[in-house]
Amino acid sequence: MTRIPMTERLDQGWFTEVFDSHGSAFSLMIKDKLHEVQSPYQHLEVYATETYGNLMVLDGCVMLSTRDNFLYHEMMAHPALFAHAAPKRVVIIGGGDCGTLREVLKHPGVEQVVQIDIDEEVTRASQRYFPELTASNDDPRATLKFEDGVKWVESAPEGSVDVMIIDSTDPVGPAEGLFEVDFLTRCHRLLADGGVLVQQSESPLYHTGSIIRELRADMQRAGFDSVATLPFPQPVYPSGWWSATLAGKGSDVTRFRERDAAAVEFPLEYYSVETHRGALALPPFMRRALSA
Amino acid sequence: MTRIPMTERLDQGWFTEVFDSHGSAFSLMIKDKLHEVQSPYQHLEVYATETYGNLMVLDGCVMLSTRDNFLYHEMMAHPALFAHAAPKRVVIIGGGDCGTLREVLKHPGVEQVVQIDIDEEVTRASQRYFPELTASNDDPRATLKFEDGVKWVESAPEGSVDVMIIDSTDPVGPAEGLFEVDFLTRCHRLLADGGVLVQQSESPLYHTGSIIRELRADMQRAGFDSVATLPFPQPVYPSGWWSATLAGKGSDVTRFRERDAAAVEFPLEYYSVETHRGALALPPFMRRALSA
Repeated sequence: MTRIPMTERLDQGWFTEVFDSHGSAFSLMIKDKLHEVQSPYQHLEVYATETYGNLMVLDGCVMLSTRDNFLYHEMMAHPALFAHAAPKRVVIIGGGDCGTLREVLKHPGVEQVVQIDIDEEVTRASQRYFPELTASNDDPRATLKFEDGVKWVESAPEGSVDVMIIDSTDPVGPAEGLFEVDFLTRCHRLLADGGVLVQQSESPLYHTGSIIRELRADMQRAGFDSVATLPFPQPVYPSGWWSATLAGKGSDVTRFRERDAAAVEFPLEYYSVETHRGALALPPFMRRALSA
Repeated sequence: MTRIPMTERLDQGWFTEVFDSHGSAFSLMIKDKLHEVQSPYQHLEVYATETYGNLMVLDGCVMLSTRDNFLYHEMMAHPALFAHAAPKRVVIIGGGDCGTLREVLKHPGVEQVVQIDIDEEVTRASQRYFPELTASNDDPRATLKFEDGVKWVESAPEGSVDVMIIDSTDPVGPAEGLFEVDFLTRCHRLLADGGVLVQQSESPLYHTGSIIRELRADMQRAGFDSVATLPFPQPVYPSGWWSATLAGKGSDVTRFRERDAAAVEFPLEYYSVETHRGALALPPFMRRALSA
């Protein structure tokens, strides 16, 4: 079976991401290619689509669109922050588009956020093509570092972080090291008692029995005391269904500050105390696969 | 901008559905075309895919796959049945693949289910290529009729139904009449007091401000006393995110028999008391758009 080459599809007005190992593909109709750069780490493209706003693509994989990134960014930030009793010091590994950073900075109790993305080109492209995501970057609580997150985690002081957000690409290429038990063990060391870690954990339909199950096992091996996988819709990602997996150090991530979450005064599109509760309720097929 | 013709894509081993008005497309890698027939109502195809099992396509639109139909069928059946106090008489309009019928028949309290699909070819294809969905068709409580659901609803006796399930294709083509206020008014008449209606209501991302909002308004115009829209993931449908909208006649469909739902002994993959509760919690962007 031959594939339609990406370039040929593009000539015809579509961007297509083929999910080879899952036998599916997702396409968006595009108006224009706005930006293309080969950074030292990956190939970055930005397209103007017909209906999803702008689209950022890294090494051929869709990272985010203007239209639906609110789902991912809210679910990477708020469940972890509300699962922590009083988060003040937050670290984001990856997340160069700054969408997760923006959500974290909405929490008035957060005192500092350090974001470490290896690739400055991602942040530069986001500033230009997704300015709404980088609008909070000048917040004095925020520090943006462009270096290797794995190395940064190795050298950061023990017990110095309340919430760690691993906002990475898929577990191949530059982000491979972020899905290893050694890295999780170092994250665990970095977290203060009561700390919460969250990592994007791929598709409930495609990866429950593989990546999600392995990540949860690795989190437990790394010393975390509780884990919780929260599914949410994400149209531009494989299967249109995605997940974040939380892990607690001396804290129970299956619970959260419901009263505080219900009382938020900042703007939200997807996250609410009810959607958080709903996401904690794993569908039976996932519950069975993860307890097996 | 020219499109890649369907046939050309197929020659290259993919089935692609283009969602023109939404500027997106979804593709599955196929092994073979198993079946093709032009019925009096629509063009029906069945493919063997590489990773989604079999795939049924009507007039070029994906209807269901072996792999992920459990999401749609469970969410079209169980929330409505548990929102009713004691459902005994159930009617399914459409639903020819019999997946919804199978879910309804899992409820021991249901005494009769009448399914009315205009196109017998859908059921014949399902029997052959999705045998797990039609395995309950011989249940003595089930009656399959192949006729026009709109006409059937016009002639059925008032107050004779507890739960009505409108399991239709999109609101264009054969199913167009199923999305009109006159039809909903007739459904309302057919339902006994305490009755519940449920209709598939398209994508939360694409249709909240259009089809979903209009359907809810039409339900209220038709005399229903309560409405609730329940989102759920559905990878093979546009945006990978879908919804069912419930309406109650003298009943509150924002509530359900939680104790009974928690005590079910039949097999479920997606539905649970928790996923039902979670689906009732609309994300803020939907809540705002639907209350506006």
